[in-house]
Amino acid sequence: MKIAILGYGTVGSGALEAAGHADDIEVKYILVRHDPERIPSMTEDYGLILADEEIEVVAECIGGIHPAYEYVKAALEHGKHVVTPNKNLISAYYEDLTSLAGKNGVSIRFTSSAGGGIPWLFNLRRAKRCDDITEIFGIVNGTCNYILDSMHRDGSSFDDILGKAQELGYAEADPSSDIEGTDTMRKCVISSDIAFDTALDEEDIPVLGIDTITAEDISFFNARGWTCKLMMNAGLSDGKLCAYVEPTVFDSSALESNVSANNNMITLIGSNIGRLSFFGQGAGMMPTGTSVIQDVIDIRDSINFESGADEDRIEVDNSTAVHRYYIRIGRDVNGFPFDLIEDQTESHKALFLITKPISVSEAHMLAKEYADTDKPLFMAGIKES
Amino acid sequence: MKIAILGYGTVGSGALEAAGHADDIEVKYILVRHDPERIPSMTEDYGLILADEEIEVVAECIGGIHPAYEYVKAALEHGKHVVTPNKNLISAYYEDLTSLAGKNGVSIRFTSSAGGGIPWLFNLRRAKRCDDITEIFGIVNGTCNYILDSMHRDGSSFDDILGKAQELGYAEADPSSDIEGTDTMRKCVISSDIAFDTALDEEDIPVLGIDTITAEDISFFNARGWTCKLMMNAGLSDGKLCAYVEPTVFDSSALESNVSANNNMITLIGSNIGRLSFFGQGAGMMPTGTSVIQDVIDIRDSINFESGADEDRIEVDNSTAVHRYYIRIGRDVNGFPFDLIEDQTESHKALFLITKPISVSEAHMLAKEYADTDKPLFMAGIKES
Repeated sequence: MKIAILGYGTVGSGALEAAGHADDIEVKYILVRHDPERIPSMTEDYGLILADEEIEVVAECIGGIHPAYEYVKAALEHGKHVVTPNKNLISAYYEDLTSLAGKNGVSIRFTSSAGGGIPWLFNLRRAKRCDDITEIFGIVNGTCNYILDSMHRDGSSFDDILGKAQELGYAEADPSSDIEGTDTMRKCVISSDIAFDTALDEEDIPVLGIDTITAEDISFFNARGWTCKLMMNAGLSDGKLCAYVEPTVFDSSALESNVSANNNMITLIGSNIGRLSFFGQGAGMMPTGTSVIQDVIDIRDSINFESGADEDRIEVDNSTAVHRYYIRIGRDVNGFPFDLIEDQTESHKALFLITKPISVSEAHMLAKEYADTDKPLFMAGIKES
Repeated sequence: MKIAILGYGTVGSGALEAAGHADDIEVKYILVRHDPERIPSMTEDYGLILADEEIEVVAECIGGIHPAYEYVKAALEHGKHVVTPNKNLISAYYEDLTSLAGKNGVSIRFTSSAGGGIPWLFNLRRAKRCDDITEIFGIVNGTCNYILDSMHRDGSSFDDILGKAQELGYAEADPSSDIEGTDTMRKCVISSDIAFDTALDEEDIPVLGIDTITAEDISFFNARGWTCKLMMNAGLSDGKLCAYVEPTVFDSSALESNVSANNNMITLIGSNIGRLSFFGQGAGMMPTGTSVIQDVIDIRDSINFESGADEDRIEVDNSTAVHRYYIRIGRDVNGFPFDLIEDQTESHKALFLITKPISVSEAHMLAKEYADTDKPLFMAGIKES
């Protein structure tokens, strides 16, 4: 089977190398913006790729929304299958692109868009063939996991660790979409779309990030044997769909607590199968490139678990998801609803609060109120063991 | 697609229920030995099933070698696909049955034979399509994991916990194949056959079980923050295949240390993908029954990653796998090779030894020498973190 890879950055070059390990996958074109002389198969001309009837699959490895969206759309309209690790694109255009693929009798696959090298979405789809998914949750951002794990291990400040992560290439120059939780939110949208046959808007999912966490928070957690992870969560509860992203503290016996460095772990709960968890590298050249090529091989071999959004779509409602929260907030806070608080300790600068069980919607509303002050709070859900 | 289920024990009844959650899978027959009046589709007549051309898949859920082997063989010879969770059968007859299936143009699938409800073998096969597997290892026996986890938690004796596990249905009346490691060895044979394109004999894999572990061992481990798990291990090293089963102690930050109760976790290391781990229920009615039906659906949808043993087969050689061991042995031991020992403490009854790094072959030979004394040693590999 002949394919084209769009883009030759980290993932594109990983996909090219991984294709070399597969039987019968030939990378005929690599679309680049500059210096197409480097490798014989490189071209700057996307029209050439679209017009070549031998090309059955286009692997979009450019990233971002534009021109990735236009390229993917054109490929589907030209009757070519598409594989992409692009979470920004799929999170925003899942319904649009899957329905366009359907109209053109081709498929669009994006296993590597949530979980990177982990065959998470593939197994989620496969599980659904004879099971009902009731819940999904996971650590899906390696950058945040690296930062949190390092802070737990050596007590350094958030900024110091972030700087080190940037040096190591685990965090980007502008890390905001990672540390503010936007990247995790997008993977939550994509995973929920598949798990619950829906098509969520990014705005449906409330998000708390880790950008305001401090060494003081970590030290509070360490003293209690708690480990903090940034989690995506989605699940059915009383006929509603809860879906949210927030830092979560686990006790030391939880599997999540031992997910170290920049690794990911993602879980499904099925009515029949119970808990299934998948651990691995959520990003990186070879893991993501390999996952892209695995999708290509699935297309070649007609392995197809595709699902789509139901007509009668379930809405997100986080009022039935209820648990305790940890909140750290300045001592000089005004108008804080202390009636929600069950336990309280303090340092000379901050209050460390444990709430009563409250709903996720209530908690995220509260966080939003204090987000824009000059000393914003840090807040994390508490996982009951 | 119409299928027959052979046997109506835990797995057979789970498979029947799981089939009800899948589209287009009809269980036309259930083969039982007694009382076929219970359910209309029940029959005592296997000839009827073999003769029925509508039956495309036979799901063997009887267990044991005989008559399961004869039934599976007959099904394959009648051009019917076979699905089975039967690890005893596959471990012993992998090459025989896969080649018979090939000759008859059908397939035999056994995802649930190692990992139960975990799609381990399925994902191992899928990973191999564009990656080289260098190592596999895992916790694959829920009974042993339940016993070890309980001993770590409450300090009880092996016999007390085993009794409790039997009451809860986590351990069988005769638990020897679990606690002596035979069950884990069989899953190691099957997983290695797939991972490394070979066909191991059960005798190729040296086995240390957990049947001689005591509360004293666990207390030694707990004091050092170590957690003991029964592990299968197989991997390529210097062109040789190491494959062995032994108790292993992990430090508290290892993922394996947090695999609680009767759960399983199995890992592959791929040259491209790195570490991928799969966690879930390794046994039980619905997890295993669902996994059986997932194999049936794969057959229905022609999803096929089948592999076979290479002609030029790699041999097992555990002389290049080297690590430290923990050994607990009676103080009155005679002729023990103390030159292998790096560290030693003692109680009034026993010696607690840490060896220098020694080869797995040397270690298992040593264990065998003391296995038949009236106070046998307990021995566990030490995983370097």
